[in-house]
Amino acid sequence: MSETPSLLEVLYEPVVRRALAEDLGRAGDVTTDAIVPASLPGRAVVVARAAGRVAGLEPALFAFRLLDQDCRADVCLADGSDAAAGQAIAHVNARARALLTGERTALNLLGRLSGIATATRDVVARLEGLKARVVDTRKTTPGLRALEKYAVRVGGGSNHRYGLDDAVLVKDNHLALAGGIAEAVRRVRKSGGHMLKLEVEVETLAQLDEALALGVDAVLLDNMDLETLREAVRRARGRALTEASGGIRPDTVRAVAETGVELVSIGWLTHSAPALDVALDVVA
Amino acid sequence: MSETPSLLEVLYEPVVRRALAEDLGRAGDVTTDAIVPASLPGRAVVVARAAGRVAGLEPALFAFRLLDQDCRADVCLADGSDAAAGQAIAHVNARARALLTGERTALNLLGRLSGIATATRDVVARLEGLKARVVDTRKTTPGLRALEKYAVRVGGGSNHRYGLDDAVLVKDNHLALAGGIAEAVRRVRKSGGHMLKLEVEVETLAQLDEALALGVDAVLLDNMDLETLREAVRRARGRALTEASGGIRPDTVRAVAETGVELVSIGWLTHSAPALDVALDVVA
Amino acid sequence: MSETPSLLEVLYEPVVRRALAEDLGRAGDVTTDAIVPASLPGRAVVVARAAGRVAGLEPALFAFRLLDQDCRADVCLADGSDAAAGQAIAHVNARARALLTGERTALNLLGRLSGIATATRDVVARLEGLKARVVDTRKTTPGLRALEKYAVRVGGGSNHRYGLDDAVLVKDNHLALAGGIAEAVRRVRKSGGHMLKLEVEVETLAQLDEALALGVDAVLLDNMDLETLREAVRRARGRALTEASGGIRPDTVRAVAETGVELVSIGWLTHSAPALDVALDVVA
Amino acid sequence: MSETPSLLEVLYEPVVRRALAEDLGRAGDVTTDAIVPASLPGRAVVVARAAGRVAGLEPALFAFRLLDQDCRADVCLADGSDAAAGQAIAHVNARARALLTGERTALNLLGRLSGIATATRDVVARLEGLKARVVDTRKTTPGLRALEKYAVRVGGGSNHRYGLDDAVLVKDNHLALAGGIAEAVRRVRKSGGHMLKLEVEVETLAQLDEALALGVDAVLLDNMDLETLREAVRRARGRALTEASGGIRPDTVRAVAETGVELVSIGWLTHSAPALDVALDVVA
Amino acid sequence: MSETPSLLEVLYEPVVRRALAEDLGRAGDVTTDAIVPASLPGRAVVVARAAGRVAGLEPALFAFRLLDQDCRADVCLADGSDAAAGQAIAHVNARARALLTGERTALNLLGRLSGIATATRDVVARLEGLKARVVDTRKTTPGLRALEKYAVRVGGGSNHRYGLDDAVLVKDNHLALAGGIAEAVRRVRKSGGHMLKLEVEVETLAQLDEALALGVDAVLLDNMDLETLREAVRRARGRALTEASGGIRPDTVRAVAETGVELVSIGWLTHSAPALDVALDVVA
Amino acid sequence: MSETPSLLEVLYEPVVRRALAEDLGRAGDVTTDAIVPASLPGRAVVVARAAGRVAGLEPALFAFRLLDQDCRADVCLADGSDAAAGQAIAHVNARARALLTGERTALNLLGRLSGIATATRDVVARLEGLKARVVDTRKTTPGLRALEKYAVRVGGGSNHRYGLDDAVLVKDNHLALAGGIAEAVRRVRKSGGHMLKLEVEVETLAQLDEALALGVDAVLLDNMDLETLREAVRRARGRALTEASGGIRPDTVRAVAETGVELVSIGWLTHSAPALDVALDVVA
Repeated sequence: MSETPSLLEVLYEPVVRRALAEDLGRAGDVTTDAIVPASLPGRAVVVARAAGRVAGLEPALFAFRLLDQDCRADVCLADGSDAAAGQAIAHVNARARALLTGERTALNLLGRLSGIATATRDVVARLEGLKARVVDTRKTTPGLRALEKYAVRVGGGSNHRYGLDDAVLVKDNHLALAGGIAEAVRRVRKSGGHMLKLEVEVETLAQLDEALALGVDAVLLDNMDLETLREAVRRARGRALTEASGGIRPDTVRAVAETGVELVSIGWLTHSAPALDVALDVVA
Repeated sequence: MSETPSLLEVLYEPVVRRALAEDLGRAGDVTTDAIVPASLPGRAVVVARAAGRVAGLEPALFAFRLLDQDCRADVCLADGSDAAAGQAIAHVNARARALLTGERTALNLLGRLSGIATATRDVVARLEGLKARVVDTRKTTPGLRALEKYAVRVGGGSNHRYGLDDAVLVKDNHLALAGGIAEAVRRVRKSGGHMLKLEVEVETLAQLDEALALGVDAVLLDNMDLETLREAVRRARGRALTEASGGIRPDTVRAVAETGVELVSIGWLTHSAPALDVALDVVA
Repeated sequence: MSETPSLLEVLYEPVVRRALAEDLGRAGDVTTDAIVPASLPGRAVVVARAAGRVAGLEPALFAFRLLDQDCRADVCLADGSDAAAGQAIAHVNARARALLTGERTALNLLGRLSGIATATRDVVARLEGLKARVVDTRKTTPGLRALEKYAVRVGGGSNHRYGLDDAVLVKDNHLALAGGIAEAVRRVRKSGGHMLKLEVEVETLAQLDEALALGVDAVLLDNMDLETLREAVRRARGRALTEASGGIRPDTVRAVAETGVELVSIGWLTHSAPALDVALDVVA
Repeated sequence: MSETPSLLEVLYEPVVRRALAEDLGRAGDVTTDAIVPASLPGRAVVVARAAGRVAGLEPALFAFRLLDQDCRADVCLADGSDAAAGQAIAHVNARARALLTGERTALNLLGRLSGIATATRDVVARLEGLKARVVDTRKTTPGLRALEKYAVRVGGGSNHRYGLDDAVLVKDNHLALAGGIAEAVRRVRKSGGHMLKLEVEVETLAQLDEALALGVDAVLLDNMDLETLREAVRRARGRALTEASGGIRPDTVRAVAETGVELVSIGWLTHSAPALDVALDVVA
Repeated sequence: MSETPSLLEVLYEPVVRRALAEDLGRAGDVTTDAIVPASLPGRAVVVARAAGRVAGLEPALFAFRLLDQDCRADVCLADGSDAAAGQAIAHVNARARALLTGERTALNLLGRLSGIATATRDVVARLEGLKARVVDTRKTTPGLRALEKYAVRVGGGSNHRYGLDDAVLVKDNHLALAGGIAEAVRRVRKSGGHMLKLEVEVETLAQLDEALALGVDAVLLDNMDLETLREAVRRARGRALTEASGGIRPDTVRAVAETGVELVSIGWLTHSAPALDVALDVVA
Repeated sequence: MSETPSLLEVLYEPVVRRALAEDLGRAGDVTTDAIVPASLPGRAVVVARAAGRVAGLEPALFAFRLLDQDCRADVCLADGSDAAAGQAIAHVNARARALLTGERTALNLLGRLSGIATATRDVVARLEGLKARVVDTRKTTPGLRALEKYAVRVGGGSNHRYGLDDAVLVKDNHLALAGGIAEAVRRVRKSGGHMLKLEVEVETLAQLDEALALGVDAVLLDNMDLETLREAVRRARGRALTEASGGIRPDTVRAVAETGVELVSIGWLTHSAPALDVALDVVA
């Protein structure tokens, strides 16, 4: 059985079409069209310039397929593989024009998603031996959420909710407007679907106790110092899933996880992880 | 006259709609809809959590407008302003639901674009006293190219071409397939529009001489060591615009610019600059 | 606080635009354009021809707004209200052309959604005094899922998952391919997000026991006879949410609910409930 | 020659894509992706759970094709066939994931369209021996008009106009605003295209006489009692096509048709016909 | 009552948005954005450089509205008016940037549609005193059919069918594949909707007689010499509408119409009529 | 190497889909569906009825491919070829229905683009022996700009800018608002990208001198008489590219070019060139 998460073409197709259209503009690749004959066959290799975890190879290759439906690719390092610097990720056979014209679209997708997968993998590695899981947030790039959350899974992380509609997360602003946790939870339970989990953000141990007494599914422990966090985890054990959040970075994540918290959510993975350096070398 | 670059709503509208739709999913904000009454008015402030240059405020606020057309905003720090940590960027009056539901979409846009503007501003600052200009590349986030290039301008940088169709850039792969610079340039001139500039990527001084002899508009000096770059700039002076490229990072940019090169292009600005930390505080 | 579920214009707008475009075709309303002067003001009343619960008034009125942005409506019976036969639901003031041209689009939406709300209300009423909740399924009209699930809520029902991605539901086909409940649940827990609930479909008490032992969130008790269902509910009490499913119709729902099951899911509500008869009377 | 109406893929493709996207959401089928290996082949049979006329098989199968382009289907009962309860409609070979993920989209389409075809067939059967034809209305599901009108044809019915632009139908509201039939018809003839038929709705015999004197193509006899209807048909014979309309249901349709009216239009066929019960059984 | 045909904004909006997007590209109007301050108000006049009939003013002005929602226009010559060379068509007040940026989109629409209206008007004028009507064809510009057919109406012409679905037109290729007129008409009557008119293309008087005997609604008399055409019209009088077609140009149209034929269809009106010269003068 | 410009399917696909959808409407080709069996194979030939240069054959044939993916075409005269009247352009094998249903969409595209290519070719021929190039403008059909500019290249012309964003063109209205050429150019240089060429429209020799002194890339010499134009060309030689513009028509173009101007831009090519007469003959 496949252990690597997979991607549905029907889901990523509009993203790749949009990205390619953005690069082609109205007139297409004026340089390549002028220089390279339409029928010339080509061969190229997608290469990792730096070490990292591959993610997004399928949508990247799809850019070439949109330009040449006879395009064929031999994949050396599928999504979830770790590439060394200089290693080939895939060999692509297509018309030379398709390779040159699709290059930037393909690499922009592959570089960004592999960058996220690599960052996630590295954070996960820092938690070795601990039971805490690394989870993402909704702080993703506009238009790329599903792909970026996929990349987090490829990196070994887990996904928090995908949007505002697939789980209930009561945050500080909600509490302020509802007049407290109990009333907020009452309103949610009155209207909400039974298949949606309910998580409440708490900032103090008193809030935590109130949330736990209400039987919520999960508590988001926001910006607590390590000692408070440890106590919160102790109180919630067996009663609700615990999640630590708030400005956690790669170098602080282990200390947070050592409190025993079950989930550590890190916005940095998707809003600020650097792209992986990938390139396309055409074999003339 | 306005010195700040401006944005056309008709251009960014589909990006913001797509981002909002991605967050709303099918059912919308189930938490807010359950907790916050539909008619409750609200007030919030967009705040910079870290210091940086503001970019993308208009599309960010547009997310709230899509949710409440009566939304009004008082802008404290328009695009191009430098915010200190903790400083208010804008005050927003809208129905409370619109504020909570639009928050993440607005902040994701504002944080990413301000991150790029801030990174560009910082790189530009490193070149103080030099005449070199900082330019971007096509290594942008799929679907966000126009907005990211706008953010580069807000940061004080200049834009390279927007896509494959608005300028001719002959790269190494083209040269390989065409059999040399002269033939590639001949083909381009035969087919290309007279309003498109022609730039050729060169890796050696010999290639540079060939390109200069052909009267190209610009030369992209790729991955040259500083000494070679200096000589290249000397030879090209008055004959073609010079651009240095290839893995240039904030800490190496000044040395490159001191060679006298006119343009320094940096992919890092758009593919790897970290987001600016921005937040929305609802005034209960 | 509003107790009626509400709808986001940004979510229903594409549905209404599509429906209107489908009716207008290429040439628009050739009859009205020929007969009614462009500037003639008009007034009409939306009327319930039969008794029922109103749902979808906002998207219905939006059809008129697309044709005349100065259109104003006075709502007599908002979503969630029960209309008697002949009762006015809303008065609409707009250019006469907009009223005649938008009529069918508006009524088709309002009639269908009110039909679902009415059917749901009637089923909910049959369960008076019982604690069971009526829930919908994914057996909705292609393109209208979010609106139809909204109508179920307006009728007093609750929503099951909105799609394949916002909850895990392991069905018989999954079990067959995975080789049993335990392995299926193991695989789901390995890959799934922590914010997704997990429900397993079971057809026998033995399967039920296996699912309960695995600690799933909910069990879908499929096509069980009432006696078996009663026993299943007894075993699951306090361990997992129980849902009865499988060809349940309005006239059988109470007997099912009397087994003590917590949720009764009824596909009929969305795939076969008749439309409510609504009309538009123009006041000449 | 094919006697079954046929469907153009290019017309139904957006409907199926939209329906599938609606079910997949952002993350796709999280259950199936976790449990079923990506490469596992599968085989399933589409089955009629109840007796009825098949309609919409092609768009239904297209849902599987969007998920696996190598999907192949053997059709047992094409559109227009009558299925007995339990009978196989088609066998589908595709990757197991495609079968499970596409199931609901395919069945929702097939069930709804077959429901309409079945209802139409049953109404047509009630008119055996009479010359009256069963026709549909514009009271269709938003977004599905072309498919639903196709299903009416598959059921043996005929189509009234597809929208506001492909025929002229002067209704009571138009008459009120124009000041009478003669003036309304004059305006239509002045502006309308010569290829559009002209039908006028009349409620009394006096109105009928006026319309017939103007030489209209068809008269819509609205809500007339049977005796009046019979007289109206007698007067219109040979002068205009006659159509009866207004709350006609399966159990009243024969009496209406026995008046000799040529067309009986029934909104119920598309706005309230129950879905046909269809299922997908995966062959493990 | 308005005698001028009117246009629905909801129908032309996508055409104007697409045209504007095509001109703006990714970066918008780089010239105007650099030179004209964002807040500078402006005023301009839309002028006819040559004499002609105005058509398409509303969609043209909509381009400015997309760029500045506060744009206001004073219309001097609405659609259907005849402009002299140099005459003002409308005065537009908007931000100066909106005027300059929207100019080409607005003028391209107005020029093309006014060109068609003018050509139609001129052809209609040639038929003065005759009863024949000028009608268009489906030989329209891809993407602009509804607007171009509207322009024909503004010019005083009438519309033939809008597409393949709103009337039946049996042409020579159909006859060849069906094996004759009688069989083709039989097939159409068996499947077709009762609200669709039926026209048959005939090339000989024998074919005409066959079609008339079948009681078709209209006959398209294709490429007949004037004498044959005259005889065809004589035979068809009172039995079917007659339409002459086939390479008719402005200078041959009167002779054709003098045969007594009721409709003269001219593809040239939409596929080859020159644009009207219109301009925008900014009042500095 | 191919000397004929080529077209990217990914760019023209939406245009062809839109055009086909516009012709199919909601119900598709009701005539063909009624008369021609679904499985009947067909063969047709695309023919030039008049002599001209072929352009747009690929997108035209794509219309058939959308209707029958097994469609195959044998191209006799590819884009860039000159057809004699009556000559076959391509033979197409597809299901008969696809041929009849796609006919008008295919021919409308081919006729319009070939019309532009033919007109351009004829204008280019008039300049034989002169060095001036024929260039297009932005006066194109809304929605078809990229295709029409392609057709100009096929006709031997060159392309001016594609939109408002791929080159800077300072026109009279800009000058009025900026207060002169020097200030306008200063503003452009301050904000503009280094890869965009800068052209200034001048109407007098004094303006020309000012523009040349500023070192602009090109000057648009607007509506100058031939003598002034000749002097302008003399002054600009070696300093800026010269372009003549303003109401130039086929019969005046040679005189303009004889002034020595390098570019002659002609809006007429795209806004008013008549379509080439092309037809589809089905081989029964």
